[in-house]
Amino acid sequence: MAKSKFSTDNVSVHPSVQEMYQHLKADNMSNTFDRFPAQEKIRCNFCSAGLSCQLCTNGPCRISDKTGAVLGVCGIDRNAMAMRDMLLRNVMGTATYSYQAYEAFRTLKATALGQTPYEIKSKDKLYDFSKQLGVDTSGSEKDVAIRLADYLQWELHRGYDEPSKIIDIFAPPQRVELWRKLALYPSGPLHEIKDATASCLTNIDGDYVSLARKALRLSISCIYGAQVAGQWAIDIVLGTPYPHEVQYDMGILDPEYVNVVFNGHEPFDGAALVLKAREAEMQELAKKAGAKGLRVIGSIESGQEIVQRFELDDVFRGLIGNWLFIEPMLATGAVDFFGMSENCSPPYLAPYQEKYQVTLASTTRLVRVPGVEKHYDYKPQEIEGQAKDMIMVGVENFKKRKGKVKSRVPQRIQKGYSGFGVEALLQALGGSVQPLIDVIAANKIKGAVGLVNCTTLANGPHDYMTTELTRELIKRDIIVLSGGCGNQALEVAGFTSLDAIEWAGPGLQEVCKSLNIPPVLSFGTCTDTGRIAVLVSELAKALNVDSADLPVAVTAPQYMEQKATIDGIFSLAFGLYTHLSPTPPIAGGPELVKLLTEDLVEITGGRVALGDEPDKVADGIEQYIKERREHLGLKN
Amino acid sequence: MAKSKFSTDNVSVHPSVQEMYQHLKADNMSNTFDRFPAQEKIRCNFCSAGLSCQLCTNGPCRISDKTGAVLGVCGIDRNAMAMRDMLLRNVMGTATYSYQAYEAFRTLKATALGQTPYEIKSKDKLYDFSKQLGVDTSGSEKDVAIRLADYLQWELHRGYDEPSKIIDIFAPPQRVELWRKLALYPSGPLHEIKDATASCLTNIDGDYVSLARKALRLSISCIYGAQVAGQWAIDIVLGTPYPHEVQYDMGILDPEYVNVVFNGHEPFDGAALVLKAREAEMQELAKKAGAKGLRVIGSIESGQEIVQRFELDDVFRGLIGNWLFIEPMLATGAVDFFGMSENCSPPYLAPYQEKYQVTLASTTRLVRVPGVEKHYDYKPQEIEGQAKDMIMVGVENFKKRKGKVKSRVPQRIQKGYSGFGVEALLQALGGSVQPLIDVIAANKIKGAVGLVNCTTLANGPHDYMTTELTRELIKRDIIVLSGGCGNQALEVAGFTSLDAIEWAGPGLQEVCKSLNIPPVLSFGTCTDTGRIAVLVSELAKALNVDSADLPVAVTAPQYMEQKATIDGIFSLAFGLYTHLSPTPPIAGGPELVKLLTEDLVEITGGRVALGDEPDKVADGIEQYIKERREHLGLKN
Repeated sequence: MAKSKFSTDNVSVHPSVQEMYQHLKADNMSNTFDRFPAQEKIRCNFCSAGLSCQLCTNGPCRISDKTGAVLGVCGIDRNAMAMRDMLLRNVMGTATYSYQAYEAFRTLKATALGQTPYEIKSKDKLYDFSKQLGVDTSGSEKDVAIRLADYLQWELHRGYDEPSKIIDIFAPPQRVELWRKLALYPSGPLHEIKDATASCLTNIDGDYVSLARKALRLSISCIYGAQVAGQWAIDIVLGTPYPHEVQYDMGILDPEYVNVVFNGHEPFDGAALVLKAREAEMQELAKKAGAKGLRVIGSIESGQEIVQRFELDDVFRGLIGNWLFIEPMLATGAVDFFGMSENCSPPYLAPYQEKYQVTLASTTRLVRVPGVEKHYDYKPQEIEGQAKDMIMVGVENFKKRKGKVKSRVPQRIQKGYSGFGVEALLQALGGSVQPLIDVIAANKIKGAVGLVNCTTLANGPHDYMTTELTRELIKRDIIVLSGGCGNQALEVAGFTSLDAIEWAGPGLQEVCKSLNIPPVLSFGTCTDTGRIAVLVSELAKALNVDSADLPVAVTAPQYMEQKATIDGIFSLAFGLYTHLSPTPPIAGGPELVKLLTEDLVEITGGRVALGDEPDKVADGIEQYIKERREHLGLKN
Repeated sequence: MAKSKFSTDNVSVHPSVQEMYQHLKADNMSNTFDRFPAQEKIRCNFCSAGLSCQLCTNGPCRISDKTGAVLGVCGIDRNAMAMRDMLLRNVMGTATYSYQAYEAFRTLKATALGQTPYEIKSKDKLYDFSKQLGVDTSGSEKDVAIRLADYLQWELHRGYDEPSKIIDIFAPPQRVELWRKLALYPSGPLHEIKDATASCLTNIDGDYVSLARKALRLSISCIYGAQVAGQWAIDIVLGTPYPHEVQYDMGILDPEYVNVVFNGHEPFDGAALVLKAREAEMQELAKKAGAKGLRVIGSIESGQEIVQRFELDDVFRGLIGNWLFIEPMLATGAVDFFGMSENCSPPYLAPYQEKYQVTLASTTRLVRVPGVEKHYDYKPQEIEGQAKDMIMVGVENFKKRKGKVKSRVPQRIQKGYSGFGVEALLQALGGSVQPLIDVIAANKIKGAVGLVNCTTLANGPHDYMTTELTRELIKRDIIVLSGGCGNQALEVAGFTSLDAIEWAGPGLQEVCKSLNIPPVLSFGTCTDTGRIAVLVSELAKALNVDSADLPVAVTAPQYMEQKATIDGIFSLAFGLYTHLSPTPPIAGGPELVKLLTEDLVEITGGRVALGDEPDKVADGIEQYIKERREHLGLKN
């Protein structure tokens, strides 16, 4: 892996983060931007290349040609060593998505039973989805919702022999057939997690091809059994995302208010907070404490889940940014309560509590941050009371914060459109994907790129690669559908506002203007990768082709964690050109690299493309899209 | 971690392995014994201490006080970094046990439906277990077995809110209450796997105490939901283990026969092979090929599963040894077919195929070994035909092997008793644990040690620590219940034969002689850890005390892989003194070490004891047992 182009002279593309970093530095607070270069100095080349294994007491082992240690003690080779660790990371991502999905199913059921502050918001989706799955839709709405929730829980632990209706419904039929042929058609995520994890044990699967195959299989169960099923359940309870204007960045924090921020990837605590904070009684509490009022603000993906479904008002103010905004935001001195669902809640936040007088709490039992003693472990049946408690803690915090901490909020607010999704897009297009196909056929839009990832410092400043690659893509008339922390990079940087239309190439500009949409469609969180896949499938089905036939590519230009890796693997299973940066720790396995970057094309149609330079990466994507257009008989 | 005392001058305590190692060396074959010192030279101290993390693109990170990199980029500290990796390894073990359990449940159901070559062998256990669990026992045996199989599958994915009858039945009530109080009472293994794995994601759980807590919780679900449930299902189908004399070591191989060897931890392929090979038609096939006949031989835990339930005869010959016997055994030139279920099937066996003319095949879809093209992925409905195919491949191999490969089988056979278990022991004691309590109270037996683990070269020669520690323990009148690859170490070394009685102290000698049992009771595989826990619970219940009150300790003196680590963690959750060697990669986290070795005593009663010297480790265990005896008011 090349050294990162990151330096502490220029930590982020976002001026607000850059500004707050200077404060963090002046305050002598340990932070990610300073810890990165410290680690960069002592980075292990074996680990970076995937040539290190710590799984058992045979080891730790390394592969070293120089010393003749060409195999691990057990006999594992360099390719399998690297791929096995990658599969383990993929399992971690799948487990996390499955956790979120299970919480969504439990919440759907509890909501049907009237035990939560939520309601069945998308009744159409409840009935449509139930019918598609063959769930009995007789009886009351409550009955149907309970049956659907039970069905989705069953899908999570579906056994080896039963087919998945979710896969069969949402994936292109050609793809489903290919998955069956390649023995990639999976069981439910919980069994795939079990089997993939068990395969990574010492002396079980030492074959990198087999391990890669297991990753592909796992990814299919993850996308359909956890992501699509989970997001559809969330849509039913909290509403299907719809495009509307919202606002981003730290300027949405007003220190004169009690500011309750919710962070992570889970939607339900944030939703409960917004609903509760809108109650007059809660506002009164805040005012009594000397604040102008009470506000609820979203952070990273939890914020994204809510902005894409809720209107902003004087209570719910929008979304700050992605995970590298967390430390800078806490340092503004304007946050009273910071609730942390999974993920990302970095582990070294306790010192921020004292320094900036903010109360931290975990809001799921998965999350624990050393030194943080408050826990509101999410339970659907208890969330209403939990939300009220969180707000009251925030109000108490305000009393202490005021006067004690000088606030310094970067005064930048960015507007943009959030909430694109399959239904919304179809509606905007008049009920069919045909208009989209027409503008692609007419070469006004050359193709589409799904950009789903995190943010990292490993290939340059915070959000540099994501924003610059996107700039290159839209300039080339390639529309970008974005999800994940990378989406918030683009939202904060203005790419989802209508002003960004002028950054697009002439064809894309024309389409955006006529539909009144930005050139980057905010498709939500990393969990919405499934949503993007469903849209791509809709396109494929309309053309009666396979997903791999389409002028569609995927990029994860600044991926950081394990959910991004399983999303990337799914993209390969889906047959797409998949750009990843930074280079994953596989470079030490030359046959593995060849499998993923070349040979896989002949198997699933997918391939990994590597590269850390925005323009060159865009060249590769554009080239691929042109080639796919040609393959479909479209002009270039 | 200290350097291992292993050297290639003395690779194993077993003469047969030592002998074959010389052949491997002369043949210039890559093998574990030579690969270990090669890795020892380039061992990474960060990895050995648990101070290395490769999970995300923030890293790879290391903790280095020297360079000031005292936290990972995300902010994780040394304790959490080490514990998180340990939790991940624990998940791997749990997933593997859960895989085995799921296969057992599927097989029970298929057997009830008449789709397998097996039968419902332990009808008593079918009905007893069903009644205990509240499973309806009306209708036919088939109906009951199907209902029980479904129930056990449900237990595997039991949700957060439903209690586990298996835990409630088999654990001491005081312990169950403590687990509830500490929020360690788990859901089913598939949910615990999901949640523990998700907790290991970047920026989710950065608190080593919380991570350790999750490991404890996971271990309880593993032992009861996967191990006990799985073994009870296997007992129902293949019979409950019962003590009987069997034989071990490489001398059981006769090169004049077609030798079909099954390896791994799964029992069903081995059982099907034995049943099939006993058919006259199969024997005829072998004789027609010029062999004296057809034989089936067990290797490692799969072999253990079968020897503890099946009688030996001229067809089924016994068990070779543990995983470090595999390469030496293949080099005898006397094996025709080597079937590999999970685990341990080391990844570099393909060169042995050609060199020693043996046909390798995987017998579960989890196992893949590079260069091995034959796969008989286990399916209950197909295993009969698969077993026949395997035998026929073995016969064909014999034709090629004879004359081509010179065989050299170390002529050592060791006899010993296998098949101890709760039921068998109770039966031997006249239906109650009281006689055992009496001899403990009388200080003839000071206490008991559960020895469950693998084998490794990391703390000395193959099986050195396991055999020497056991020698020390029985000399001190401490009875040993053994499971896992460590059990095979003891079996091959003669500890489970009646001859070993003379190695015991005077009190234990007296008891062994009067009951006609060896001083080491072969309790089966690592999967039988649950069986040992059930026995300990029976003792505790009879005395109306908690497991932590008993003069019972656990040791894993040569643990290697991830199943051993979850067994060790369970022992801590169970409240026991738990010796581990080699030192796990946690030494870099001083607070974590303190938690596991000291503070935990006040929480669960359990603690980790470290140490690589047999006599000193035995001193520690003896001291603890004395202290527990005193605590119970027993004389020392």
